[in-house]
Amino acid sequence: MKKFDKILMAHGGGGILTRRLIEEEILPRFQNEALAPLSDSALLNLNHPGKLAFTTDSYVVTPLFFRGGDIGRLAVCGTVNDLSMAGATPLALSASLILEEGFPLEDLQKILDSMAATAREVGIPIVTGDTKVVERGSANGLFINTSGIGIVPEGISVSMSSAKPGDVVLINGPIGDHGIAVLSEREGLKFDTPVESDVAPLNSLVAALFEITPEIHCLHDPTRGGLATGLNEIAGASQVGIRLFEDKIPLRPEVQGACDLLGLDPLQVANEGKVIILCPSAFQDALLERLKSHPFGKNASVIGEVVEKPAGTVLLKTLIGGERIVDVPYGENLPRIC
Amino acid sequence: MKKFDKILMAHGGGGILTRRLIEEEILPRFQNEALAPLSDSALLNLNHPGKLAFTTDSYVVTPLFFRGGDIGRLAVCGTVNDLSMAGATPLALSASLILEEGFPLEDLQKILDSMAATAREVGIPIVTGDTKVVERGSANGLFINTSGIGIVPEGISVSMSSAKPGDVVLINGPIGDHGIAVLSEREGLKFDTPVESDVAPLNSLVAALFEITPEIHCLHDPTRGGLATGLNEIAGASQVGIRLFEDKIPLRPEVQGACDLLGLDPLQVANEGKVIILCPSAFQDALLERLKSHPFGKNASVIGEVVEKPAGTVLLKTLIGGERIVDVPYGENLPRIC
Repeated sequence: MKKFDKILMAHGGGGILTRRLIEEEILPRFQNEALAPLSDSALLNLNHPGKLAFTTDSYVVTPLFFRGGDIGRLAVCGTVNDLSMAGATPLALSASLILEEGFPLEDLQKILDSMAATAREVGIPIVTGDTKVVERGSANGLFINTSGIGIVPEGISVSMSSAKPGDVVLINGPIGDHGIAVLSEREGLKFDTPVESDVAPLNSLVAALFEITPEIHCLHDPTRGGLATGLNEIAGASQVGIRLFEDKIPLRPEVQGACDLLGLDPLQVANEGKVIILCPSAFQDALLERLKSHPFGKNASVIGEVVEKPAGTVLLKTLIGGERIVDVPYGENLPRIC
Repeated sequence: MKKFDKILMAHGGGGILTRRLIEEEILPRFQNEALAPLSDSALLNLNHPGKLAFTTDSYVVTPLFFRGGDIGRLAVCGTVNDLSMAGATPLALSASLILEEGFPLEDLQKILDSMAATAREVGIPIVTGDTKVVERGSANGLFINTSGIGIVPEGISVSMSSAKPGDVVLINGPIGDHGIAVLSEREGLKFDTPVESDVAPLNSLVAALFEITPEIHCLHDPTRGGLATGLNEIAGASQVGIRLFEDKIPLRPEVQGACDLLGLDPLQVANEGKVIILCPSAFQDALLERLKSHPFGKNASVIGEVVEKPAGTVLLKTLIGGERIVDVPYGENLPRIC
């Protein structure tokens, strides 16, 4: 592969180059047991029943306000969702702001209101924070970091490496909404039916699933790099094949239309309110029913299955009956998406 | 006070304007029990002996490399120190990078090496992380957020509001080194004896103090806004007076010289390896002796005492025998210092 000596936008895309940056530059330096799985939350033992989950994310989305959400709501939901994907019940969040000199107070207030409202919706307090200001022109308005901690109850163990042949793959609704909403805003694209971001906190939905069964194998939120990246990460970590059925993947016609227009693969477009669920097929119907009764799962669907081979690969059975490999994007289709 | 409708550099200075931004815009929106004390670490109950401490900080120092340290070492030490100041034994750190497109890989590697080396020195793993890339010109090279969690053992309770009349005030060494080191680098100032940043992890030093006595009342790291801001925060939160003895405050002549030249008050200049310790005077000698035997406490000194009145005020007994009020800076003496 090509060597690089400077950071490229593509290093932030959540695709192959992001992975390389992390695996070549970060992992070898910081190697430890909790970091090694490279899941979004680290799991820590605490001489306490269950485990402590710990996660962090910085949010650099542009524009700061988009149809269906804003950077504040995104920053709370994204971190709550990372905890939820670890099977953790979120306990507390931190919020750290990097503000640019000259940033309008009115915008800051709207964003803080949105963070506070989302934290209330989630039921999780923001317990610590930090504020830095940098000179005009050096932070593009506002960046937000949120970190979060949560408790994984005893008996729950989900991970990217726990998918088993025979598992089914569910998703809680249509894909690509967040990416297209942000891109439309940024590029000034107009659609007859405007696309709204799906940004939402998934903790209550995930809790509802665990009430049905603790035997969920994987939970994953397909954010940067979309469903394609999320499923490839699971297939790689679990060394299984995943077969998707294109006709079962929920996708709004307006998102499909925008993707066609822009030359994007909706499977690679970011989501911020979606969860991929892998579980033994025995629980498929009960989980699907529960998902459909939740506000964030009305359009849930069983979209695929886990098979033994080819290990580490995601295949798509297309609408016209063919089969193609679902790739991870190399770099960055949609920069600054989260 | 003047109303503002845009963020000013001074909002990031750690002084009065920072406090106003937090108290007017942030606290009212996010009000909760763990956030309310506005200490650097939140303390959480966990059905576990002791408490969980949780802290976050974003680092925006410029330049990224300075005499005595770099943004990577600073990002690890700063967060470890925030945990230590809560009386917590650090457990794990997160690291989130916002990289600018075009950032030299070599610099990134140096900074990651420095973070890793400091994490090893501290003995605390970095267990989770995140990497974002933003367009050229929109992040000034690199910003780092680190968050941290730790455990406050049962029986230890330090807080900004626990200072009591009769307490003595100790510090582990000379003040102002970090601020002057960064400023010298930035402004290209040359001194006969160059000033090095004091950036250092204080967890082992704090642990050594607790071995002497759990009855330490306050621990505080005087970073942005310096010793003046740190002591004013304690005096305000505890509603006590603090009387400082100028002749007892360790200060390198070269730092004093630089401050004279630049019109800065060394009491308001940032430190990154210093801790203010308030404890009953009975422990003064034992703590001082222990400090002096630690690599980061060789020049420790008893610098003041806690009195009843005037509550909320810090007074300095000057070298020439007078007394003056020690103020918090209004805004920003030294922007981008951490």
